[in-house]
Amino acid sequence: MSEFQKLLDRIPPADASAGECAQRRLDELTKPVGSLGRLEDLARRLAEIAGVCPPTVSHPVIFTLAADHGVVAEGVSAYPQIVTTQMVENFLRGGAAINVLARHAGARVVVADLGIAVPLPPHPALRTCRIGAGTRNISREPAMTREEASAAIDAGIALVESERLRGLDLIGTGEMGIGNTTAASAMVATLTGARVAEVTGRGTGLDESGRRRKADIIERALRVNAPDPADALDVLARIGGFEIAGLVGVVLAGAAHRIPVIVDGFIATAAALAAVRLAPAARYCLLASHRSAEPGHRHALGALELDPYLDLGMRLGEGTGAALCIDLARAAVKILTEMATFKSAGVSTRRPEPSQT
Amino acid sequence: MSEFQKLLDRIPPADASAGECAQRRLDELTKPVGSLGRLEDLARRLAEIAGVCPPTVSHPVIFTLAADHGVVAEGVSAYPQIVTTQMVENFLRGGAAINVLARHAGARVVVADLGIAVPLPPHPALRTCRIGAGTRNISREPAMTREEASAAIDAGIALVESERLRGLDLIGTGEMGIGNTTAASAMVATLTGARVAEVTGRGTGLDESGRRRKADIIERALRVNAPDPADALDVLARIGGFEIAGLVGVVLAGAAHRIPVIVDGFIATAAALAAVRLAPAARYCLLASHRSAEPGHRHALGALELDPYLDLGMRLGEGTGAALCIDLARAAVKILTEMATFKSAGVSTRRPEPSQT
Repeated sequence: MSEFQKLLDRIPPADASAGECAQRRLDELTKPVGSLGRLEDLARRLAEIAGVCPPTVSHPVIFTLAADHGVVAEGVSAYPQIVTTQMVENFLRGGAAINVLARHAGARVVVADLGIAVPLPPHPALRTCRIGAGTRNISREPAMTREEASAAIDAGIALVESERLRGLDLIGTGEMGIGNTTAASAMVATLTGARVAEVTGRGTGLDESGRRRKADIIERALRVNAPDPADALDVLARIGGFEIAGLVGVVLAGAAHRIPVIVDGFIATAAALAAVRLAPAARYCLLASHRSAEPGHRHALGALELDPYLDLGMRLGEGTGAALCIDLARAAVKILTEMATFKSAGVSTRRPEPSQT
Repeated sequence: MSEFQKLLDRIPPADASAGECAQRRLDELTKPVGSLGRLEDLARRLAEIAGVCPPTVSHPVIFTLAADHGVVAEGVSAYPQIVTTQMVENFLRGGAAINVLARHAGARVVVADLGIAVPLPPHPALRTCRIGAGTRNISREPAMTREEASAAIDAGIALVESERLRGLDLIGTGEMGIGNTTAASAMVATLTGARVAEVTGRGTGLDESGRRRKADIIERALRVNAPDPADALDVLARIGGFEIAGLVGVVLAGAAHRIPVIVDGFIATAAALAAVRLAPAARYCLLASHRSAEPGHRHALGALELDPYLDLGMRLGEGTGAALCIDLARAAVKILTEMATFKSAGVSTRRPEPSQT
């Protein structure tokens, strides 16, 4: 039995009493009830996921998992496959958007190679958990075996376990993999029942004819592989990706340990959806960071009943949306812990409705 | 001639070349072109407003101006008038939402009394620029004289000038004043031509009958005062507020000195709209932070052609939305200054569209 299957039954429910404690506190603070809108919602959700009130955001970590995709041979991306390796190098040097935004948010970034096509020499900051040298071409055969998918999920779990030793109270999910919007679109179409045309976007920058070609290739992948929508592991293995399966493990481990998981964009949300199909109880730990410009994202968010906090038209991945949302999560927690109450500040509470006086 | 009238002709245009410099840099960074969405737009706008590339966000300041409103005698607010004074005390002690969110964003807060009904004893952190002990009741007479409105605008300008001496490269606007959504709704209806019912919301928490009563009082204020929509100073004087007029001065001073002004919610946007009607050139310096839950906000934003960066259902004021957006502005600038370029990182650029190969 793989690690992740042992986790599936160990996922706790949300802690309603911690959420209520946060809500009571929010309602006592010197502001009209509810007037900080979704920032209050975020504070309450962090409390009920973590099971503590107030929650902390002291050790946020973005897990940026990278892998390659055999389907890029079909011309589904505007960038050559070597960019996956080059961008991982960029992550290790600290020059990518995720490095900048994670530093801004005071978050660590864990960069892991789940199976890029051209591997890098060992580097102290690179976690190596390679399942293969990229997936196989899903337009012709399954991306990976069921065992490989399980191993990738387990690798994601192991990354979280090792970060827990260094302190970990908030997870952000991120990814890098040229071609991975193709895999994510195929997965979201399968898991939600949405039409391929509706969930296929321009990725990193295809034009309209490129997008149609990509949708045709996804249709072919679904015919060739016929993934079983009721079996999320089958979906991951046939049409997923190593980094996507790794993120499934990250989500499951977060859920098992009451660590809030801030989901990044389209690909990370496809992974979260697969995780929730494997273990429906895992949904309680998820927060959606931002609404991606990729059209499939709203289908994946809808299936998870998640409403993102940010809508900035971003479509980069890497965990960049999650990083921006970590900053918002820190602000939400400070509202809970640093604001005065009506009582402590000697501020009058509201009077009866004028219409009733 | 009052200070502000001397400023009106000294407002420069946006610096297109600084904006283009930022855009060129953004397009060279290791990410697909445009993939950071509105974060890129924010970086470019900051550059073209400040006229430098890259821009800085080293000394952000939130100007939180407070004053009272005679119209609260009509029962337009869910809170008693004394809350304005109590909340100013709370600001001075650091316990309000704006203090928490400004600290989070690394911004100073300038708290100014433009005319609260019950003044506070002197406090080293309180800037006193009182025009009166609250405005007069607009449902019966003009809020203030034209001279008082000018003096309040000048006071806002003076606050900015004095903060410039301490370092100031980003302005956030904020306010506190029980009853000031009533004044702002009256102003926005007058300046945009929108119907009163469309721009009147529940403020800090009226019920539906309270909201209708408030709309009736605004209708009466417009009949009694008949403000001239083509004369923004007349609008401010007849149906505005001291803190709103002060924020007009803050905006005009920002515009004169090429300092980006991040506008908070409904009331701050009403002030920005009045500033732009006084000096249309001032529009270039404005950035909208968030979309308020107050229904009139979209009318004011529409008239200014501003699209907010955040939409979190907030309706608190004080500058809280601006503070959250300052954090986003810092992130946007770091993207410009800290990310690697394709060339520096040795990352391959995009290949020709697959459809053309």
